[in-house]
Order: sequence, then structure tokens, then C-alpha cells
Amino acid sequence: MILKSILPSHCIRLTHFSFNRSYRTKSIMNSIKNLTINEWKPEDSISKKIKDLLIPISKNGTIPKMNYMLAFLQIIKSLKFQKRTGWIDHGIPVLKTESIADHMYRMSIISMMVPPNIDSNKCVKIAVIHDIAECLVGDITPFGGISKDEKHRRECETINYLSELIKPYNAEFSEEMLELWLDYEEIRTIEARYVKDIDKYEMIHTAWEYELEYGLKYNLDQFFTARAAIKTKEIGELADSVLEKRTKLMNDLKEKEQEKAKEKLKDSKITTSTESKSVDVQPTL
Amino acid sequence: MILKSILPSHCIRLTHFSFNRSYRTKSIMNSIKNLTINEWKPEDSISKKIKDLLIPISKNGTIPKMNYMLAFLQIIKSLKFQKRTGWIDHGIPVLKTESIADHMYRMSIISMMVPPNIDSNKCVKIAVIHDIAECLVGDITPFGGISKDEKHRRECETINYLSELIKPYNAEFSEEMLELWLDYEEIRTIEARYVKDIDKYEMIHTAWEYELEYGLKYNLDQFFTARAAIKTKEIGELADSVLEKRTKLMNDLKEKEQEKAKEKLKDSKITTSTESKSVDVQPTL
Repeated sequence: MILKSILPSHCIRLTHFSFNRSYRTKSIMNSIKNLTINEWKPEDSISKKIKDLLIPISKNGTIPKMNYMLAFLQIIKSLKFQKRTGWIDHGIPVLKTESIADHMYRMSIISMMVPPNIDSNKCVKIAVIHDIAECLVGDITPFGGISKDEKHRRECETINYLSELIKPYNAEFSEEMLELWLDYEEIRTIEARYVKDIDKYEMIHTAWEYELEYGLKYNLDQFFTARAAIKTKEIGELADSVLEKRTKLMNDLKEKEQEKAKEKLKDSKITTSTESKSVDVQPTL
Repeated sequence: MILKSILPSHCIRLTHFSFNRSYRTKSIMNSIKNLTINEWKPEDSISKKIKDLLIPISKNGTIPKMNYMLAFLQIIKSLKFQKRTGWIDHGIPVLKTESIADHMYRMSIISMMVPPNIDSNKCVKIAVIHDIAECLVGDITPFGGISKDEKHRRECETINYLSELIKPYNAEFSEEMLELWLDYEEIRTIEARYVKDIDKYEMIHTAWEYELEYGLKYNLDQFFTARAAIKTKEIGELADSVLEKRTKLMNDLKEKEQEKAKEKLKDSKITTSTESKSVDVQPTL
């Protein structure tokens, strides 16, 4: 009941799908255009070992609440090992690619530096919760072949699923997690606005770090366009500061490349000239 | 001045070493037994590219405070890519090993589930700060050949260094980070006590996850002994719950291994018996 009362309209239907599967009749399913895609549900991504922990009532008649916590922690473990798709898609080596948890971690540190009139406690919590649904959904990018709506549906289903799963162990956290996730998703608070911006900024900063390390090897231009979506003054200034340094870096790198190309051309001309000279000389020998 | 007033006595001397290097005379250095080890300072682990950002006054006479933030974020980036040494030392494959940031990330989620009388906001912040000095010090284990005192000295130097580094960008965060780190290090608050326990528990849980995945392949017994250091009831109960399941898992795995060994022995006996029979049979052909 809590879920329904706090979820936005587009998620209520999904809650209904998630927790009242008995209502999920064939007729409803047939009304969904792409059955294959819409069939996805969080439970499908959970191993048998974890499912075995989720027994509603144990042999002695009590709810084994610890099991729910152990299952929850095993599920979110995948955030440590799932790499951020954007970097992988752009060719960054796997060992040099951050996990989803890594990204949320540095976001949490940046979130501690919001202006004094913003609640940094809330920002840090939103930062560590905002991508938690990716533990089952994965990190879907706009180029992953899954629509924005479907991505959102999966994430809504997952946050509801996770919230229900952890409830027997800690009902307060179950609700807080959902609230924080919705804060971010719907940008319901000024803190969520800052964390949205920090999410973009952390990505821009990471892209710049790759360019500092790899030069022009990978084309990461696309990531820097995220600056346009940053709304807050302070995070915008940080992004601008990175963009300014990036422009200088790109100019320097391109200049160096042009110089190298010129040197190469010069060398090849000298070689050709020497070669032609040697051709000239040879007959006289 | 702030630093000296809030740092515990054993860190004050180190602050002096860190920020008043002009006092670091040859005679002081000679009084330190192991010069090679004690020579370590945070600056040594920082690349030239990052150092180039740290110019006290820019050309137009202002402090380039953004540069300090960009440098700070680049320094803590290493928490995303440094693997937790304990697992590596026990043979866990690199791609299956969490980063320091990954570990702090899951700790931050567990920290949201402390009892209602404990300040979860503070717990989450302590969780994401407590290992931050490892960005320059690295993850030194008791088996790394560096003494506990030297590890502590390096971490003290580093947290002071980081705190001074970020000050031009955000003085409030600079102080808060130091305070949270000291809270944890000195277990000055009940929140720090919980996070200390969560640190141990998250490790125990991870060790159990490896056993669920790899069975008896790696001997991870050592990690489970950390249960003895857990003091709080709630985190102790979680650890006990894992230990109980782990005992069952170990028994099952060992039983299976014994069965396999028996099967093998049986098979080899049958083979020997068949072989001897066939030897018996052959002459009659």
C-alpha cells in the first residue's frame, strides 16, 4: 500500500505488475506490443542460490529476515562488477573501466561538497541509491537497443522488487531507498537536482581523465555534451572548468599530431630526395 | 591551526612533518630508524599532470580553487581501480576482485540500515570517507611487509594532505572529511563503531560470496576470524548469520569432495578388477 501511495502514476501500473502477478493475465500481456522486451522481470536476473534464501516462513514458523538481507546484499554485489557500458562501448579497456559502484562512490564524495544551504546528507544518500536498480537491470545506454520507456519500466520494477525484498529485514530502509530513488528519478527535491548534475559531471570528469591518459585514442566527444543538461551553478562551474582544460588539451594534442604529420612528410621528402640522389649517383659508380 | 587542534596526539607530529617540511632537518631525519620507509610522503604518489594543477596563485592573482577540486578528484580516482589486496593475495582473479571504492560503496548501503537510534547520515558519510587515504597509501594488509605504525603514519599524512589540498575549493568539506576520518580511526562516536563493524562484516560477506562461487578453491578461512572484532549486536547477528550458512556450505562441499574421492577410489577398484578379469579372460580366448 505504501508503494502505491508514493509512486508516480507511471510507476503505479508497474508496481501492480510487480507484486500482483496474479493479475498479469494473458489478455493484459497480449496488449503489450513487444512481448519479448516487456516480459523482463527482476526475478529473472536472480540466481537459484539467492532465490533459495527467500523462503517466506522458515521451519520454526518465523520469517527468516536475515536471509532477506543476505539475498539483498548478494544482489547488489553486481554493482561492483558491472562495468559502465558507455566506456566499454567506446573501446576503453575493461581493466580501466569503472564499475557502477565506483561511479556512485565518487559521486557520493562530490555530493559532500554541495553548497551549505543544500542537505549534503540527503545528497550522499541519493548518490549511493540512484543507480541501485542497475544491479538487476544493467547499465543501459541510449545506444543499447532498449527504449527509454522500457529502461524506465525495468528500473521501476526493480526498485519496487528490491524494496519489497529488503522489507522483512528493515522496513525503514525499504521505504527510504524507494523515496530516495524517486527523489532522483522525478527530481522532486533540490538535493536530487544537485545529484542529477553531479551524475553528469562525474561522467564528464571521467571522460577528461581518459583523454589525459590516452590522448586522442578514443573519441569521447559525446560525453562532454552532457554539460548542457547541468542546471546548478556550482556543478556547472566545475564542468566548465573541465571543459576549458579539455579544449586546451585537445588543441595541444591536435597540434602535436599535425607537427608529427609534418615531420613525417618532411622525413619522407628527405628520404625520397636521398633515394633519388642515390639513383642519380648509382650510374656514375 | 585547525588541524592541530582536532588531531589526536600521534597525528600532530605527522601534521608537522607534512606541512612544515622546512622544519624537517637532517638531524630529525637521522633520528628516524628506517629512512627508506619513513621517507614516504603523499606527494610522491601524485603524477606531474596533477601537480601542475596545484599552482598557489594563478596569473591573474587569484587562487585557482577549481584546480584544487579537479586535482582532488583525480587523486581519489585511484580508489576505483585499486583492487582490495586481501583477495588478490589469496588468488582471487583480478576481474573478480572489488576495488576499494566498490567495498566502501556496499558499506554505505549497509550503513543506511543501522538501528533508528544511530545517525545513519553520519554512518554513510563515515563509510565513504574511512578508506579515502588509500587513494595514495594503497590497501596495505598486515602481510604487506609494512608495519601497522608505518601504515598509520602514511594514512595520517595522506588525510592531512588531502584535507589541505581540497581546502581552497571547499573548506567545510576539508574539515568534515578529516573529522569523519578521525571519528572512524579513533572510534570516537557510536556511528564510527557501527561502521567499523560494517567494514568487517562487508568483508566476511564478500568472502562467503567467493566460497559460494568458487567452493573450496581458495582458502579464505582467515577472513571469517574478523567476526571476533565485531562489537555491535545488529552487525554481529548479520555476521553470525553468514557464518552459520558458511559452516553448512563448507560441510556440504567437504562431504561432496569426500564422496567424489570415494567414487574415484571405487572406479579405480572396478577398473583394476575389470583389468584383472580381462587379464584372466584373455588366456581362455
